[in-house]
Amino acid sequence: MMKLAIFGYGNLGRGVEAAISQNKDAELVGVFTRRDPASIKTASGCPVYRESDLAAFKEKIDVLILCGGSATDLPEQTPRFAKEFCVVDSFDTHAKIPEHFAAVDASAKATSHTALISGGWDPGLFSLARLYAQSVLPDGKDYTFWGKGVSQGHSDAIRRIEGVLDARQYTIPVEEALEAVRSGKCPELSTREKHRRECFVVLKEGADPAKVEQAIVNMPAYFADYDTTVHFISLEELKRDHAGLPHGGFVLRNGKTAGGEKHTIEFRLSLDSNPAFTGSVLVALARGVYKHFAKGDYGCKTIFDLSPADLSPLSPEELRAHYL
Amino acid sequence: MMKLAIFGYGNLGRGVEAAISQNKDAELVGVFTRRDPASIKTASGCPVYRESDLAAFKEKIDVLILCGGSATDLPEQTPRFAKEFCVVDSFDTHAKIPEHFAAVDASAKATSHTALISGGWDPGLFSLARLYAQSVLPDGKDYTFWGKGVSQGHSDAIRRIEGVLDARQYTIPVEEALEAVRSGKCPELSTREKHRRECFVVLKEGADPAKVEQAIVNMPAYFADYDTTVHFISLEELKRDHAGLPHGGFVLRNGKTAGGEKHTIEFRLSLDSNPAFTGSVLVALARGVYKHFAKGDYGCKTIFDLSPADLSPLSPEELRAHYL
Repeated sequence: MMKLAIFGYGNLGRGVEAAISQNKDAELVGVFTRRDPASIKTASGCPVYRESDLAAFKEKIDVLILCGGSATDLPEQTPRFAKEFCVVDSFDTHAKIPEHFAAVDASAKATSHTALISGGWDPGLFSLARLYAQSVLPDGKDYTFWGKGVSQGHSDAIRRIEGVLDARQYTIPVEEALEAVRSGKCPELSTREKHRRECFVVLKEGADPAKVEQAIVNMPAYFADYDTTVHFISLEELKRDHAGLPHGGFVLRNGKTAGGEKHTIEFRLSLDSNPAFTGSVLVALARGVYKHFAKGDYGCKTIFDLSPADLSPLSPEELRAHYL
Repeated sequence: MMKLAIFGYGNLGRGVEAAISQNKDAELVGVFTRRDPASIKTASGCPVYRESDLAAFKEKIDVLILCGGSATDLPEQTPRFAKEFCVVDSFDTHAKIPEHFAAVDASAKATSHTALISGGWDPGLFSLARLYAQSVLPDGKDYTFWGKGVSQGHSDAIRRIEGVLDARQYTIPVEEALEAVRSGKCPELSTREKHRRECFVVLKEGADPAKVEQAIVNMPAYFADYDTTVHFISLEELKRDHAGLPHGGFVLRNGKTAGGEKHTIEFRLSLDSNPAFTGSVLVALARGVYKHFAKGDYGCKTIFDLSPADLSPLSPEELRAHYL
């Protein structure tokens, strides 16, 4: 039985909590928070503790799952907590992964702990799909499509526009591009050809819809390079129809073997809830961290370093007999 | 540079040979055969040796890739060659994997070699897709669809019918079933609902097409449980339109997280040539065997036991910086 704990109780923390309840070899010791524990009621009824209580849990937690954000929380927290605990995080700032890895690796090795960074689905399962496909088909081209799904960053960018009360942005793969890749055509695709963006916007009273729409569709980096559709809706509609956080996407590789034969490898996720699914991935990865720690393999890992069997609760014998 | 050799030069052996030419960290030492080496001209021009020559290559081969059949070749060859070499095979008789594993593991451990069995795409990449999906979504249901692709076993079964000169059988997933799974409906599907079978048959002179068709569609285990279509064509048409060995398929999992959210994970292969692609997988797995042998990790492995990074020619630093 692996004893898990959660640090940070937002959407992802709740996703991890839900995932732990589905894994018979895992138990949830508690949720740790920087907020006032009395202000939090967990879905599972598990106890909530202050960050300062963690010191008393050194022997009671096998893996601490860090559910903070990549911008400011994890760069500071993961290296710090890796000195006291085995940890897993979902650090997703791709460009800063080497730096984050080095910091966590140093902490974990110095104190003989095992850590894993950048778990989830991208980075995470999508990275796996890319790596396996490239290893198997060295001559080829990769494509990643995201969506249909809610982009929090793009939704936030819309909310910062004057006159906007609330907004939800969906990233949507362009079906024709996806079909071109799937059929093995190995196309060159521009940003605009790969994804389109659909925005549902609630205006503040008196705001000018035309002005807001122009501010959205012309926003550099976020929207200017895409075909963007803007729908103005009421707050009630936003709450009723756009409350979820669905996401997903596609990783494809068009490759050729030496005789000229074409092959396409596709990995697809279709997720009702991004944080619930990400939480489930983190728990499977925590199992891998737990196993590596148990055999004395310390330091920082990524999903590339754990064997597929490491993520499973089943024995190697069961896996060979029934899953190969 | 890993030095690879091939034992058995049929379709799969040629696929491995072609794959080695695409991997800069691999070189092909030679092809070994039970036939007369003078009767074989390799596509790459690499030398061909007798099986008895292998003894002289003990220090010259890092991994020997066994390209024989699962029915009689591999159960005997893999345990035997694992005493002298690191080996990889594509043993695909699912029910006999535990027995084959035990035999290969004993040989490899006794002589400090590393072996990998059951490489390819099913078993192989499809097994990986199932294992990752189950580890991440413990509450769910798996589906595997094969095709569109040529089934050698079913083609052979048709050829054994009186009056049949030659035949090619395609296994085809039923689109409606695939869509039901993809949409997260978690359906119960019968054999007939999942796949249909399409047969292209060349008759011997004077054979009765109606009789042959009945013999095919009513054949127990092979065709009786499927909707089967039979087309009679000329030998010229068979050679012109059905010479390839395309294959592929889909592994899907419909899963639920504890809050009731539905998620679908899909892995898809679309392959112009089954042996060319399988050969490519075996070369990536040989790299993993080579790495495990180098660090003194002996015995028999499967694709479940190698980390994704083990299959890649890139360094862990490169993988983290560019592929995560």
